[in-house]
Amino acid sequence: MVLRFQASRALLPLTPSSFLKFCPSIQLGFTSISSSPTKSFTIMAASDHYTFGRYKIDPKEVFYCTTLSYAMVNLRPLLPGNVLVCPKREVQRFADLTADETCDLWLAAQRVGQKLELYHKASSLTFAIQDGPQAGQTVPHVHIHVLPRKGGDFEKNDEIYDALDEKEKELKQHLDLDKERKDRNMEEMAEEADQYRKLLL
Amino acid sequence: MVLRFQASRALLPLTPSSFLKFCPSIQLGFTSISSSPTKSFTIMAASDHYTFGRYKIDPKEVFYCTTLSYAMVNLRPLLPGNVLVCPKREVQRFADLTADETCDLWLAAQRVGQKLELYHKASSLTFAIQDGPQAGQTVPHVHIHVLPRKGGDFEKNDEIYDALDEKEKELKQHLDLDKERKDRNMEEMAEEADQYRKLLL
Repeated sequence: MVLRFQASRALLPLTPSSFLKFCPSIQLGFTSISSSPTKSFTIMAASDHYTFGRYKIDPKEVFYCTTLSYAMVNLRPLLPGNVLVCPKREVQRFADLTADETCDLWLAAQRVGQKLELYHKASSLTFAIQDGPQAGQTVPHVHIHVLPRKGGDFEKNDEIYDALDEKEKELKQHLDLDKERKDRNMEEMAEEADQYRKLLL
Repeated sequence: MVLRFQASRALLPLTPSSFLKFCPSIQLGFTSISSSPTKSFTIMAASDHYTFGRYKIDPKEVFYCTTLSYAMVNLRPLLPGNVLVCPKREVQRFADLTADETCDLWLAAQRVGQKLELYHKASSLTFAIQDGPQAGQTVPHVHIHVLPRKGGDFEKNDEIYDALDEKEKELKQHLDLDKERKDRNMEEMAEEADQYRKLLL
């Protein structure tokens, strides 16, 4: 039996058990279950998405999740492997997280960073939280920027932050404007997420 | 009875109990104990400092410590309240930390950030780890940059990162060159650390 997302571009066929193993805490809004391999069934019910501020994030963009956190690919990655790690619960400020959420979030970011650094043959990582609007936060939902780094990836190291800031501004803009999502299509993002998902099994 | 550091600029008299409460895990190299309030005794033995890479950090610069982490003031803060939070154990990469160390480190940074943001009447925070040399790390000992942020503190938000990178370069330079430490003297740093220590009691 194969699960397919209700969204038309079902790139990630998952068995129910592998999906639940991948993300045991996601609430699936099953409407029907069929044993026929040719018949897809709905798992994209209202509860079947991640939230990022007021935005819904398609599970196809999410490649790792823990009890309290998830990691997603970027619409326009600044560098290969530039991803975001977020708490599942929507809070604006880092200090709003419980101790359990804080630990879970950073253990997730640590694991994601380590795997993506190796995968992208990088040799360092940048981790940053822009915690509040005066720090450049545009979507009021805590998120860690994780960026695999290589020698010479930016002419001056500090340029990564200029670029990161531009990305933060774009993040909200892109999430707001569906048409902008054509910049990088869902298939491409889902494929990248699928690769990362395998790394993090 | 008053404890004084062996270093000549003993700005932080502490009773043994308050010192141990402040940092219960530090190894004190007592050589003698006197009940006379006028007679100092030695606590700056070889084991009585923090390490930051290959550098020794005077406890007077340290304002918060937990079982596995400590926070210190900066020689040349980029902004008021710009401090560093480090694991006590010297490891270069974030992924080298155990889960306990990772949680302890980020819970410490969270608490430090929250207190310093309020204290400095800021409204946001920047948290960043430059994890490895290609990410701008100069001292190979994991450290979180914590920066209280205010509207308009930098003309463009991304300038904070340019400045942070300069600070990272200076960090090693200043730790290497004692004469450079005159930029901000130990009295000033100890006084700031003392203020922060009270906040975090």
